Amino acid sequence: MSDGAGLFGEVLARGPVREATTDLAWLQAMLDAEAGLARAQAAAGVIADEHAEAIAAACRAERYDVDALGAQAASVGNPAAPLVRALRAEVGDPMASDVHRGATSQDIVDSATMLVARRALDALLDDLGGATEAAARLADEHRATVMAGRTLLQQAVPITFGLKAAGWLVGLDEAAQRLDAVRRSRLAAQLGGAAGTLSAQGDAGIDVLSRFARELQLAEPVLPWHTTRTRIAELASALGEASGAMAKVAGDVVLLAQTEVGEVREGGGDRGGSSAMPHKHNPVAAISALAGARQAPGLVANLLAAMEHEHERAAGAWHAEWGPLRELLRATGSAAAWLRDCLEHLEVDPERMRANLDDAMLAERVAGAIGGADAGDRVREALAAGRSLADVAHEHLSDDEADRVLDPATYLGAADQLIDRALSAHAHRS
Amino acid sequence: MSDGAGLFGEVLARGPVREATTDLAWLQAMLDAEAGLARAQAAAGVIADEHAEAIAAACRAERYDVDALGAQAASVGNPAAPLVRALRAEVGDPMASDVHRGATSQDIVDSATMLVARRALDALLDDLGGATEAAARLADEHRATVMAGRTLLQQAVPITFGLKAAGWLVGLDEAAQRLDAVRRSRLAAQLGGAAGTLSAQGDAGIDVLSRFARELQLAEPVLPWHTTRTRIAELASALGEASGAMAKVAGDVVLLAQTEVGEVREGGGDRGGSSAMPHKHNPVAAISALAGARQAPGLVANLLAAMEHEHERAAGAWHAEWGPLRELLRATGSAAAWLRDCLEHLEVDPERMRANLDDAMLAERVAGAIGGADAGDRVREALAAGRSLADVAHEHLSDDEADRVLDPATYLGAADQLIDRALSAHAHRS
Amino acid sequence: MSDGAGLFGEVLARGPVREATTDLAWLQAMLDAEAGLARAQAAAGVIADEHAEAIAAACRAERYDVDALGAQAASVGNPAAPLVRALRAEVGDPMASDVHRGATSQDIVDSATMLVARRALDALLDDLGGATEAAARLADEHRATVMAGRTLLQQAVPITFGLKAAGWLVGLDEAAQRLDAVRRSRLAAQLGGAAGTLSAQGDAGIDVLSRFARELQLAEPVLPWHTTRTRIAELASALGEASGAMAKVAGDVVLLAQTEVGEVREGGGDRGGSSAMPHKHNPVAAISALAGARQAPGLVANLLAAMEHEHERAAGAWHAEWGPLRELLRATGSAAAWLRDCLEHLEVDPERMRANLDDAMLAERVAGAIGGADAGDRVREALAAGRSLADVAHEHLSDDEADRVLDPATYLGAADQLIDRALSAHAHRS
Amino acid sequence: MSDGAGLFGEVLARGPVREATTDLAWLQAMLDAEAGLARAQAAAGVIADEHAEAIAAACRAERYDVDALGAQAASVGNPAAPLVRALRAEVGDPMASDVHRGATSQDIVDSATMLVARRALDALLDDLGGATEAAARLADEHRATVMAGRTLLQQAVPITFGLKAAGWLVGLDEAAQRLDAVRRSRLAAQLGGAAGTLSAQGDAGIDVLSRFARELQLAEPVLPWHTTRTRIAELASALGEASGAMAKVAGDVVLLAQTEVGEVREGGGDRGGSSAMPHKHNPVAAISALAGARQAPGLVANLLAAMEHEHERAAGAWHAEWGPLRELLRATGSAAAWLRDCLEHLEVDPERMRANLDDAMLAERVAGAIGGADAGDRVREALAAGRSLADVAHEHLSDDEADRVLDPATYLGAADQLIDRALSAHAHRS
Repeated sequence: MSDGAGLFGEVLARGPVREATTDLAWLQAMLDAEAGLARAQAAAGVIADEHAEAIAAACRAERYDVDALGAQAASVGNPAAPLVRALRAEVGDPMASDVHRGATSQDIVDSATMLVARRALDALLDDLGGATEAAARLADEHRATVMAGRTLLQQAVPITFGLKAAGWLVGLDEAAQRLDAVRRSRLAAQLGGAAGTLSAQGDAGIDVLSRFARELQLAEPVLPWHTTRTRIAELASALGEASGAMAKVAGDVVLLAQTEVGEVREGGGDRGGSSAMPHKHNPVAAISALAGARQAPGLVANLLAAMEHEHERAAGAWHAEWGPLRELLRATGSAAAWLRDCLEHLEVDPERMRANLDDAMLAERVAGAIGGADAGDRVREALAAGRSLADVAHEHLSDDEADRVLDPATYLGAADQLIDRALSAHAHRS
Repeated sequence: MSDGAGLFGEVLARGPVREATTDLAWLQAMLDAEAGLARAQAAAGVIADEHAEAIAAACRAERYDVDALGAQAASVGNPAAPLVRALRAEVGDPMASDVHRGATSQDIVDSATMLVARRALDALLDDLGGATEAAARLADEHRATVMAGRTLLQQAVPITFGLKAAGWLVGLDEAAQRLDAVRRSRLAAQLGGAAGTLSAQGDAGIDVLSRFARELQLAEPVLPWHTTRTRIAELASALGEASGAMAKVAGDVVLLAQTEVGEVREGGGDRGGSSAMPHKHNPVAAISALAGARQAPGLVANLLAAMEHEHERAAGAWHAEWGPLRELLRATGSAAAWLRDCLEHLEVDPERMRANLDDAMLAERVAGAIGGADAGDRVREALAAGRSLADVAHEHLSDDEADRVLDPATYLGAADQLIDRALSAHAHRS
Repeated sequence: MSDGAGLFGEVLARGPVREATTDLAWLQAMLDAEAGLARAQAAAGVIADEHAEAIAAACRAERYDVDALGAQAASVGNPAAPLVRALRAEVGDPMASDVHRGATSQDIVDSATMLVARRALDALLDDLGGATEAAARLADEHRATVMAGRTLLQQAVPITFGLKAAGWLVGLDEAAQRLDAVRRSRLAAQLGGAAGTLSAQGDAGIDVLSRFARELQLAEPVLPWHTTRTRIAELASALGEASGAMAKVAGDVVLLAQTEVGEVREGGGDRGGSSAMPHKHNPVAAISALAGARQAPGLVANLLAAMEHEHERAAGAWHAEWGPLRELLRATGSAAAWLRDCLEHLEVDPERMRANLDDAMLAERVAGAIGGADAGDRVREALAAGRSLADVAHEHLSDDEADRVLDPATYLGAADQLIDRALSAHAHRS
Repeated sequence: MSDGAGLFGEVLARGPVREATTDLAWLQAMLDAEAGLARAQAAAGVIADEHAEAIAAACRAERYDVDALGAQAASVGNPAAPLVRALRAEVGDPMASDVHRGATSQDIVDSATMLVARRALDALLDDLGGATEAAARLADEHRATVMAGRTLLQQAVPITFGLKAAGWLVGLDEAAQRLDAVRRSRLAAQLGGAAGTLSAQGDAGIDVLSRFARELQLAEPVLPWHTTRTRIAELASALGEASGAMAKVAGDVVLLAQTEVGEVREGGGDRGGSSAMPHKHNPVAAISALAGARQAPGLVANLLAAMEHEHERAAGAWHAEWGPLRELLRATGSAAAWLRDCLEHLEVDPERMRANLDDAMLAERVAGAIGGADAGDRVREALAAGRSLADVAHEHLSDDEADRVLDPATYLGAADQLIDRALSAHAHRS
């Protein structure tokens, strides 16, 4: 609800998105909308140019008292109405009557929300891009770093850490592309007047709408979208998808950093120490990324549920969007900032990865080399009886073949080609 | 994330719960936990009394810098560790080493969360109680106010407004009782040390735990609950249930206040006017109550999903609780403050209620009086053919009987008894 | 969990999506995946053509016992393993060892899920398209049907029913386009083997992957996506967005159909009657559409939360997808089927719309014509003092001007142009 | 949607709750409600005893066609109306007109839902009780089994496996007690007639309501609760809390069963093998328990959001409850069945637990023994410089003291007492 990081903000709302979503940022965005409207109307010949410029000059957030505006918001249910009053007072007559001309509070709040979202996405995509680059670097550097592939948290067959990082890369890239597509094409200006007819704009309605969108560098909607909330829902969904993609990566880091696994460790200075337990080195960045990313499911659910806007303005569903959208931007932004930090400083231990490899993991391959529908069962029985896999392999196969199938580095399938595909897709992403 | 109401707080986080959940309130609660711990340990003979008192004296939030503590929180992932450092510096040697003795960060944050929750619930239950009293008054005053009962938003059979308000009362009472039960028995102190064994408390572990709980006036848990999050989940669920009960009431008010229905109107001064549309009178309190109440489903979902804490401290799920729990307290508290305001000033229009009654609504009764399995079909056909219900009634029934069944005031069943039951249950609630 | 409509299916899972998502449909899709894999491997020269054709010939769901496969699924946690056994038995040696060659259970279940999703989306988009066409027709036919625009459920300024329907159209069109984009580009084959390296495909891994995707007419992924669940999340989100867009429309219908509003009525035969209340005509289709659409928020939340897949196969999160994805497809499909029915048979009452118009709604316009920053206040005071709006208008304006501003049909702004824009966008949608 | 286990039921809807929630079970519960109503009315003198008995005799589900009733449900939006028609036909005149007398469809569906919930909770609590007993046994048997306490998935300080199991026990006990409290006091009969006035029951309304509740062995509500959905919400929340408590346990099992940890293993026959990877032993029960438990957050969210029932019957929110409530019962029941299976057959490896203990974990204790505010930093530096903890301990402490602090079995604090507390609370639970 405020602008400082406070007690929890550096953990839960880390990074530049917090700055982009403060109350002051929201206020400035509302003022940007009012300024854009005045300029659009001047360009359309509805109001005088000098009135528009006087209005625009007054649209600087630092001139207004956020808390006072917020207090007045209670009597009408939104902060746009008191802001219009304050802005009119600031510009004085005769410009006052050209402030907010033909607009309704929702036009200003919705357009401001889109401006805030664009600025927040710019920051978020920068951090997400940093995390993605780090994943690409890890994928390329660790092509030959053999490790256990783990399914259901059991060692299964060998993979490379490069392939694991390539999987992270693809997930983060997909999420970033979807967020960027929403940013470029679905953030639109809102202008409709009291009930979406633009009736208070006279004959210039459509012209003012077009110019208003251009002024704000937002998309021009087919119709005012005051009760068509697909745009909010698509934004929320894309943030939720990005959160999920980041949670997968952060979760893997936490698991790989376990004391008993120890295959990665978070670098980045002395973070993660425990004053009470000096031997510990906690993966604080990955954990904090998870904490942020896990906010998404419920917040997205709230925003999807809030799509049900009644008639020409919702009785509650509109107001219900403000909190979760801000929290969702912040939490996803925080996850991106933490994950970037985590991946950019990730310390990988190839020796430990190799040492952790359980030979039994090659059992699938030995069974395949032995052949026959029941080879799997036979190998399983032999292992259960206490025999080593090498024993079983040499019993059924030539020594050369047995040695080959027992070497994990020759059992990586298309891992290298798949890394190439991921890096190529990353390089050519739109 | 902050302590002022900001741009949206008076709409979305109204009422005393916001004050009870500020960063400063959370900081004070953490300090209360540290003070309580020191006193418990002094009483258990683990540390000197004068050390405990010196520590307790330093546990005043205004002595510390919230933003500085928050900034340091990033390196360990929670604000308790930097607070312990600051508190140790504040008390100096030799008391410093008795600060936070044998405790872990989670002990302090969890116990503080419970203190914050208790203070927030006190405030919330006061507002919810106010709304409940208002509903009880409306139920009693409007026993004889006949109105349409509406099913699927179609007029169905007559009810009284008193009965509708009695339904609100029961829902709010049930929600308040569940919240109060959680407040009284499920808010517990947390103390376990690094992994829940109380090992750093020496032999005094259980004794210190008991005394710590009493110091904080919180329940003493069977075990430390650092990764058993049922308490958080029950608190969240009870808030969610209260939100749903309030949303039902607020939704009814919005529907009754529609221009075409006009049976209630929000009083309470000049709120709800529209500068652009001077004829409008918006039910701002009910709408804002809805906006708050509708935050619950997603936030509760996030808190239920966060119950999956790994081993002896969660890697992300714990941190993931802080934001949604605070938001949920605030949003539910806001709904309660708005709903109380709404109901305490609700203006009811019995004449409009009576005028809105559609005679056709008595069709069920006429069909019942006519009798026979197909009476309903026959009445429906007659109405569809354009006949009035009175016509149909008089065709099939004696005039006295027809007059009786056509009078809605004689068709209210047990409405009055039901109101008595609701008021009695309210008067005798635990 | 089954294939019949059962007790609730015709209400909650209406329409062709239910058929496309039965257990039998899922089983057939798993068999299609096995057949596609065999053919892809034959084309890649890995197995003999005649083996592939024998396998494909055995891939007909009616040859297998769904309940028996389901019962065996319990011991391994998924139905693919028993299906592979059954399919091997069906084709016999020597083809048996070429069944499911180099694949893992998740490859089959995930690819089958994508096939089911594509078939379900085909059906869903057909119904959604029908609803969209109906909205387009209503928008065009009711360009001149003046009605009250309602904000916060209060009459605000006039609109046309055509404009309202145009808003529905845009929301449904946007939702359909997003769903179609997911259908065309994000439904991909999954093939990776035990841990995503394609190691058990020999050197042919990438070639088999490409051919497999073409066989199934699904997109070829950059990498196996066994633990990169963005595709599932995007599908879920798009379904959630569509549900929200439909809920908005259905909600408006329910509100317009209220006894006290009566501006629309569901046609479509004798549905919606009440045996107990013969006068009632319930908007059953709109209500059932709402019931379906409102499943989305929680189900999408579950699917977003399930994105956190550990390592190379998830320990629970994968299994956690199956139920909510099927329920989400069914519920959204049901909403589309019901909404199409609702809109295709919607009976609109222009006379009632005109009659419901509250003159006071023109107050904004009168205030604008009077001019000056305090005109709104002055009009409000006059109305509060019991004067008619016509009186106030004639006091301050010339008679001609007063008559003009009091005619709602001259106060519709750009409504007609906006309808043209919506219809044009609909005609030219991709 | 059906009654067989189908393809996924044995994994996702395991155990007796599935049987208790089939369509047939729901139909029988609706018939039980009709029978209970007739008997209540006979006892109240409203209808003839022999009519009531004839009606009750016809209330056997196998006499009716579920799919046919479901098909007819579409025209009115619920299956009660066609069932009443079928039941009337079954009993014939003159009893037909005493069927469903004065009731509305929602009375029957809601009361049936409560009956289904009670039967499902009986089954669920049995499985949850089994899991709880198994946890109690593990807690008692493994009092002396020293293992690593892990925080943030890093080894922290020693605990015992008994203490870990005691934590599971407390979580499961708390969840079971809450579910049982809901079962005993919050499952209530619903009877109100068309709009909740009991008007069609004549003067006997309250009497019939009381007797109806007793017939069904459900609680008697203060008021009909047709639009007061706190009961549904409390049931859903308690299921969600139980799911979370179970997810914590199952998650711990999955982590302890990791190849690199190997401290527990699921027994219970040959389940969990992998045909492709014969060395693997997957914790299928724990994973399936997680899959079930993780359905709760979204389903609870949907049910909380559906609390907003309009006026005297909801337009969509009521129908929106049916699916998620059934799915939630089934998923939670499945989690309980799987978790019971998991814990009853859990194989614990105390040797591996001891072997996994990292000496560095004792660093906290060594630092405490050394004393002073910077001891932690000094120990950390020494460890970082490559020294062993034993070295550091012996440098600063006497040999006896060093040996003592280096023995994890002497560093378990109140673990044993805490186990006693958990077992005692379990033995004395209400």
